[in-house]
Amino acid sequence: MQDNADLADRYRAYIDCLNRQDWDSLGLYVDGDAEHNGRPFGLAGYRAMLEQDFQAIPDLHFSIGLMVCNPTHVAARLDFDCTPAGVFLGLPVNGCRITFSENVFYEFHAGKIRSVWSVIDKMAIEAQL
Amino acid sequence: MQDNADLADRYRAYIDCLNRQDWDSLGLYVDGDAEHNGRPFGLAGYRAMLEQDFQAIPDLHFSIGLMVCNPTHVAARLDFDCTPAGVFLGLPVNGCRITFSENVFYEFHAGKIRSVWSVIDKMAIEAQL
Repeated sequence: MQDNADLADRYRAYIDCLNRQDWDSLGLYVDGDAEHNGRPFGLAGYRAMLEQDFQAIPDLHFSIGLMVCNPTHVAARLDFDCTPAGVFLGLPVNGCRITFSENVFYEFHAGKIRSVWSVIDKMAIEAQL
Repeated sequence: MQDNADLADRYRAYIDCLNRQDWDSLGLYVDGDAEHNGRPFGLAGYRAMLEQDFQAIPDLHFSIGLMVCNPTHVAARLDFDCTPAGVFLGLPVNGCRITFSENVFYEFHAGKIRSVWSVIDKMAIEAQL
């Protein structure tokens, strides 16, 4: 079993991978049977979700505001400052610059992300439009 | 400094306190200078927020779905299955039974909650109405 510092390091490396849009390396961090909010995406579906996120938000950047780890799970508060191009989460953002956070839990299995439970602060975005 | 198991136990006791609506004991778990999503509520404002939550949602019950702790922070995914009486988070729930989660981080100071960063899954509720 990995210790907490190892998992924190792996998580930071995963976030770096996202920010580089290094999709060919995503499988180093995401399990082939990955689930996201109960959807059984697998690695290919997980990658497709992220690619679509960057398409919808060209200046998307993941920033770790807070991280809490134990030997099997990472909880992170991710902070965003970005300009979604069109409709985002059902809201007409249309190129407005917005800031918001995502509170997200990850379950790791053999060093890779297996399950994700994410909540994005939609109310914070609504308050900015 | 408390170890992680101590903080997990304290957090479970805090959740029990909420579910009992034992407001006179809230100060055992919540710091006098508590902040919630950046709002400097203090203990009285924190209590008022919770009392109003139970007024708006008569069958409100806090259930810990997932918890990740380190020596100073608790991250929890709280699961709700309840019937808000009227408008909830700006949505016309009006007595519909809904299920949703809240992903929330707590910073503890001397064994009490000092800062809270909470995100409620509003999109999950929208999908049920």
